[in-house]
Amino acid sequence: MRYPVHLSVLVDHLKKLPGVGSKTAERFAFEMLEWPIGELRSFAEVVEQIPHKIKLCSTCGCLIALEECGYCKPSNSPHPLMCIVANPRDVFAIEGTHTFKGYYHVLGGLLSPLDGRGPSQLPIDSLKKRIQTLNIAEIVLALDSTLEGDATSLYLKQELSPCGVQVSRLAFGLPMGSSLDYVDGGTLARALSARSTF
Amino acid sequence: MRYPVHLSVLVDHLKKLPGVGSKTAERFAFEMLEWPIGELRSFAEVVEQIPHKIKLCSTCGCLIALEECGYCKPSNSPHPLMCIVANPRDVFAIEGTHTFKGYYHVLGGLLSPLDGRGPSQLPIDSLKKRIQTLNIAEIVLALDSTLEGDATSLYLKQELSPCGVQVSRLAFGLPMGSSLDYVDGGTLARALSARSTF
Repeated sequence: MRYPVHLSVLVDHLKKLPGVGSKTAERFAFEMLEWPIGELRSFAEVVEQIPHKIKLCSTCGCLIALEECGYCKPSNSPHPLMCIVANPRDVFAIEGTHTFKGYYHVLGGLLSPLDGRGPSQLPIDSLKKRIQTLNIAEIVLALDSTLEGDATSLYLKQELSPCGVQVSRLAFGLPMGSSLDYVDGGTLARALSARSTF
Repeated sequence: MRYPVHLSVLVDHLKKLPGVGSKTAERFAFEMLEWPIGELRSFAEVVEQIPHKIKLCSTCGCLIALEECGYCKPSNSPHPLMCIVANPRDVFAIEGTHTFKGYYHVLGGLLSPLDGRGPSQLPIDSLKKRIQTLNIAEIVLALDSTLEGDATSLYLKQELSPCGVQVSRLAFGLPMGSSLDYVDGGTLARALSARSTF
């Protein structure tokens, strides 16, 4: 006996969420069957309204709720910083640290030849223009510590250094609260080579 | 900088899915921001239509898509079996084994005093009536192997045995493919006491 068609369709939709396989999607779907009608209706409305209520700033690529982007406000510094991130979510992670003040630029993805994302897909020209217009003094590359993140960082360094802007990258080392026993060799090697006087 | 309001509302909805905390809900939400409009619209429609397209059979409690319940079909056996499960999903798990032929009865939940579910919430009277009407020979209790499942099984045995029906319960023992090293003591003890000649 198979699931009713509507349930199967619901499961298929839920399976598109990241990290959700058949089993989890089925668990979600059966839970949703018990939600009250009002809850289902308001959830459906929220989902449908996503493209109308949430947009990306055409200048910096950050998420915006209203017409005006909260991240593009002019800086007080004559030589401001600019943080380059892969996607809009990373902006919230950086903001959450309360240790960065400056502009953001969302790339919208990393270089990934296997997925067909080459340098032409990265918005390099608009980024260079923005760096000049805003008179940026330092670019902080805040990209993933993965093969794609490393490749994109290298590429951006090559492209942006000739613009006369200083390019820095997030530090690599031990995560907070970590025990050496559980830290992988690559991280430990990077933490060693980047050791600081104490 | 906080999330746009609409995004927060979406995250709050997603957090109601089982096992989904803030972090996962945010991951889901950011992924959904990238879904095409058509995908969002059809997902919203599926969610909203759940209460209209999927119903529970008023007799056995199984999920039904059409007006007629596929599980309530009359049995050929003069003394048929009836499997008692906690929720509609379990019916699909049992059906998936292709080893049970008989009626189902969905309790809709287990006894759980902490959650305020006492014996009065279980549909005992309608179950007894159904057992008599269908002339059931054996009740198979297919409930969780948890405190609540055990309590509910015991309670049902006490209630149903006087009706002259045989009451059995799923076997306990080693799961398929398990290694003794990883099996907990309770399971091993039950597997030992229920050992069979080989």
